[in-house]
Amino acid sequence: MTRNVQYSNQVDATLNTIIGGGNYHSVVALVDENTRRHVLPRLGSLANAAIIEIPAGDVNKTLDTLSHVWQELESCGATRRSLLVNLGGGVVTDLGGMAAAAFKRGMHFVNVPTTLLAAVDASVGGKTGVNFMGLKNEIGVFAMPDAVIVSTTFFDTLPQQELKSGFAEVLKHAILCSRDEFQQLLHIDLSHIEKDQLLERLQASVKIKEDIVAQDPTEQGIRKALNLGHTVGHALESWAMENDKSVPHGYAVAWGLVAEVVLSHMKLGFPSGDLYSLAHFVRENYGAPAITCDHYDRLIDLMRHDKKSLDGEINCTLLKQCGSFTIDNSIDAESMKSALDILRDLMGV
Amino acid sequence: MTRNVQYSNQVDATLNTIIGGGNYHSVVALVDENTRRHVLPRLGSLANAAIIEIPAGDVNKTLDTLSHVWQELESCGATRRSLLVNLGGGVVTDLGGMAAAAFKRGMHFVNVPTTLLAAVDASVGGKTGVNFMGLKNEIGVFAMPDAVIVSTTFFDTLPQQELKSGFAEVLKHAILCSRDEFQQLLHIDLSHIEKDQLLERLQASVKIKEDIVAQDPTEQGIRKALNLGHTVGHALESWAMENDKSVPHGYAVAWGLVAEVVLSHMKLGFPSGDLYSLAHFVRENYGAPAITCDHYDRLIDLMRHDKKSLDGEINCTLLKQCGSFTIDNSIDAESMKSALDILRDLMGV
Repeated sequence: MTRNVQYSNQVDATLNTIIGGGNYHSVVALVDENTRRHVLPRLGSLANAAIIEIPAGDVNKTLDTLSHVWQELESCGATRRSLLVNLGGGVVTDLGGMAAAAFKRGMHFVNVPTTLLAAVDASVGGKTGVNFMGLKNEIGVFAMPDAVIVSTTFFDTLPQQELKSGFAEVLKHAILCSRDEFQQLLHIDLSHIEKDQLLERLQASVKIKEDIVAQDPTEQGIRKALNLGHTVGHALESWAMENDKSVPHGYAVAWGLVAEVVLSHMKLGFPSGDLYSLAHFVRENYGAPAITCDHYDRLIDLMRHDKKSLDGEINCTLLKQCGSFTIDNSIDAESMKSALDILRDLMGV
Repeated sequence: MTRNVQYSNQVDATLNTIIGGGNYHSVVALVDENTRRHVLPRLGSLANAAIIEIPAGDVNKTLDTLSHVWQELESCGATRRSLLVNLGGGVVTDLGGMAAAAFKRGMHFVNVPTTLLAAVDASVGGKTGVNFMGLKNEIGVFAMPDAVIVSTTFFDTLPQQELKSGFAEVLKHAILCSRDEFQQLLHIDLSHIEKDQLLERLQASVKIKEDIVAQDPTEQGIRKALNLGHTVGHALESWAMENDKSVPHGYAVAWGLVAEVVLSHMKLGFPSGDLYSLAHFVRENYGAPAITCDHYDRLIDLMRHDKKSLDGEINCTLLKQCGSFTIDNSIDAESMKSALDILRDLMGV
């Protein structure tokens, strides 16, 4: 668990303090073309840093890119007492963390996540990695950054779609653990974010994830709760990909959250008021999935083949109410079809 | 520090117990063409293991080979609950350790070093890695194997030269820390090794290294003592390479040990009796380096550019007697030339 997570919208000052206090041999910034253009110029603390740029996008999260970063670290004379500042979304923080962890058997690094999703992901757990043979994060190590600076400062550089996509995970954390937190999130206007307000919510969200991960670091039990919304969400995402209508991961998760809360209402009596509040927020911010009842069989087939599924059953986390969940619920196909019907109704399809 | 080092010449039985007790999903053996032919058939405990072969030799200790091992691990369906058994010299244990450490963010591994040098190296410290851009072990991580089985069982599969090369490091440990141990080593006949006798000495040697490393894990101070013999040794090795007369690393270290003990005698009064015993043993087992006094200037130049050197001085560890060393001695060129003269005399050149 990373202990040194700093929540601050004074990113440049915070980074400056870290660099000043670390007695590092040199400082290197890892960026992609987006953060080089939009974020780097806002950080005077990196004015003298060597810059390594990698191409943006998950498709570039590869061993080849990793090898390129190592070559550049050699070229700029980095030592194990140098600091690598990973400035970007999940590709930069995951790949940069791996690069730092294995360069000369470990140099210092700091993560400055610039997307909402990376901020939630990069803050907890010390996971690094790259994709390999079509498998996500297949090659990687656990390595702790010297610090993670969580901020909302750079979210104005993100497309709305990227911000909303990350927000679905924040929403999920709240539903799992705190009705109060859930209610607060529903008041956030994602098209006009208040940076400091969002930072508070982000901090609360990371805290929830930390608590769950700390109770079950190796995902034997309750950590599976973090899969809420993802059984239906992954199926919607895969279906969209099969049909050349790719949707952002977080959009699919948002719809999946609604469907699985519908199931929670059907099976465990989740309060309808909170269900409607969630559905309203999701419809307003994420629109509706492009499915009809003709697609249900394929969607259910995809759910049965999810890696969380055991023996071809559909496996979901469900809730009695916000903050009270049960993992490993087996869902029959008819119930799932009803939930998808209701999801479409709620989304106004 | 690896706690689970097992000293045993019953390697198959020991490995069988480890495999039986580990509840592993599957077992995979990493070998090179030599250990596949000469060692693997002697280990019934690996009869059902999947086999991954890499080409022997330091030149193959690369990212490409590492990537090949990861591909093969995928192909044979290894999981993070599988066990990788690294069966070979330093290339196999270093590269295999790195492969295991980063596969799915860490699978289990056991090192079975089959060379004397790998046994001394692989037993302590959890270092893994591959070469990169001409730099040794430039990319790697610290990762602890489930166990290391140190044995002398397979040394009969090694060329004499390989065995002698590794023995120079064993000799070095003894000189640094224990006159008793040093005396015992001088009675070992490297052309007719008694496996169990050598295993005892190997255990003592690893213990010495462990003690030094534990006192100074990051090589700020006394761990530098482990460089004894290497200032002159590396220069002899580099000089030989420049002149197409490449010598095994351990041979150069053995000659370097004599030269630096000569310096210790000159500067700190190291007892001449022990110096002559060492010189005799080295001459008998390693012969003499092919240098003349015409090569001294180039050798000294190489020593000044050693990475241990600060500001172009020649830096050596010296001894008052066996077991009493001082690090960071600066040696002037004239003294070094005298030491090289005496080295050549003692080696019978």
